[in-house]
Amino acid sequence: MHYIGIDLGGTNIAAGIVDENGCMVVKDSVPTQKERPTEEIVDDMAALCNTLCKKSGIPMEEIRSVGVGCPGAIDDKNGIVSYCNNIPMNNYPMCEILGKKLGKRVSLSNDANAAAYGEYIKNGSGCDSFLMITLGTGVGAGLVLNGKIFSGFNGVASEAGHMTLVHDGVQCTCGKKGCWEAYASVTALLRQTKEAAENHPESSMNENIKHRSKVSGRTAFEEARNGDETAKAVVTKYCEYVADGLTSLINIIEPERVCIGGGISKEGDYLLNPVKEWVNNHEYNRYCPKTAIETAKLFNDAGIIGAALAGR
Amino acid sequence: MHYIGIDLGGTNIAAGIVDENGCMVVKDSVPTQKERPTEEIVDDMAALCNTLCKKSGIPMEEIRSVGVGCPGAIDDKNGIVSYCNNIPMNNYPMCEILGKKLGKRVSLSNDANAAAYGEYIKNGSGCDSFLMITLGTGVGAGLVLNGKIFSGFNGVASEAGHMTLVHDGVQCTCGKKGCWEAYASVTALLRQTKEAAENHPESSMNENIKHRSKVSGRTAFEEARNGDETAKAVVTKYCEYVADGLTSLINIIEPERVCIGGGISKEGDYLLNPVKEWVNNHEYNRYCPKTAIETAKLFNDAGIIGAALAGR
Repeated sequence: MHYIGIDLGGTNIAAGIVDENGCMVVKDSVPTQKERPTEEIVDDMAALCNTLCKKSGIPMEEIRSVGVGCPGAIDDKNGIVSYCNNIPMNNYPMCEILGKKLGKRVSLSNDANAAAYGEYIKNGSGCDSFLMITLGTGVGAGLVLNGKIFSGFNGVASEAGHMTLVHDGVQCTCGKKGCWEAYASVTALLRQTKEAAENHPESSMNENIKHRSKVSGRTAFEEARNGDETAKAVVTKYCEYVADGLTSLINIIEPERVCIGGGISKEGDYLLNPVKEWVNNHEYNRYCPKTAIETAKLFNDAGIIGAALAGR
Repeated sequence: MHYIGIDLGGTNIAAGIVDENGCMVVKDSVPTQKERPTEEIVDDMAALCNTLCKKSGIPMEEIRSVGVGCPGAIDDKNGIVSYCNNIPMNNYPMCEILGKKLGKRVSLSNDANAAAYGEYIKNGSGCDSFLMITLGTGVGAGLVLNGKIFSGFNGVASEAGHMTLVHDGVQCTCGKKGCWEAYASVTALLRQTKEAAENHPESSMNENIKHRSKVSGRTAFEEARNGDETAKAVVTKYCEYVADGLTSLINIIEPERVCIGGGISKEGDYLLNPVKEWVNNHEYNRYCPKTAIETAKLFNDAGIIGAALAGR
């Protein structure tokens, strides 16, 4: 049995055909061109599904259902995009419209939830509770409880990036101050890296930033691995911000497994080990089985796989 | 159909007979005397159940099941108290031992979860997700999802009092710094009240504290209502601490309803209105249906009612 998953992003529409175990058979993408009318975007989503069938030789009749992962607030029960800033949609009945174009049952999930579900299927399956956090431009989260995406009574839960880490702290884009995202996102790491380089002009990190005239989320990690003390301090503090927020989530939810995704998770043990150590030293639970913490495995495929299988 | 609920506390064993709608038929309590052997405490729990039957005229044969709410880490699936600091227990098979004494099926819940379930049954029934927070000596929480207590994969979830509100902030009793509990508990309010009185010796609040030579969780609220500016500032900031943590929980969980319990909830609208306003102005969700926030209705009966019905 096969399923189509579509990860509708602000830049690209990525889609794939997935089997019942979450293995990707074929994938492809087209530009979203998000400024055009939504109907045209949905036409391209349908066309991409047909392209996948042709490419794989799996006829559309053998596709059991189609799932869409979409940014924004999603009414998954009714298949409606309640609102989305990134690709302008407001009360848009995605499942009905795409369903008619394809002649298939279509389901809808928030994109972060779909990615969490994809990682759950491939790497957390069978566990009672699975939390994925994504350290990217912002900090996203998705929670799978008893094998199902948890999205709150109104479809917009798991905005863990907007839990407060520092009361009255750094201004967040959401309007509140001190959100976890304002300390633990890659955007925040960039800010922390630049500030440290400016404050330590003698550091090798500052020299290299000036030399290459660019700074990324990897800069501090690279320089720390090369032994620069300024960079080491940035990485240590960044990992502490990540770990402190994660400890809060573990204290609240006690998920069986946590998976850390997003570009920065490619730092592997250099991120994971200090985060795990901090959580272990600070979590409330000292005596019961502990939450396992690991890095994501699927990266960009998670959203497609999760969207495909979440609505089965 | 009737059920017995037992709220096992560090000071008292409180118990009651409850009908299927959560109405209390009869209740009673005996001192816990927590220093004695656990077996003796459990003997008194069983004796209290028999007393309730005699008092109410409902014979034990007509009691369908018995539920116990207990502090600490609870393995509710296996009916075992994993650990408890308050009443020393470690891997104690409560359900088996009490069940044998009474000849009844016995269920076990964490006490904060049982209280949340009690409020849910009486005041949140039918809602998809119900979160109770208790502002007391500490800050407790309990979450009911789809009509069932959510306790994490290991039985110790909902320790929302130990989510960080101020990274690297005030030392908490749990070992971590900056926990919500260290800012939003009654213990924290007392500290904030004393500090403000000391810093404002001219305030009416300071005069009254000196005059009565005592300070309680109610002091700042009372003085604020009487117009003292120092007290008003304490109450405003305290409500902001409560609201900021609650906003984090709403952003993460999006429960359909939140109920605020504990002694301080008796301040009613004087607590509730500023908390609701702050949450409304700062929560991430702006466009979807919002979480309803209210104060608890059952107070001390919640734990008995919830324990009685949670294990049905």
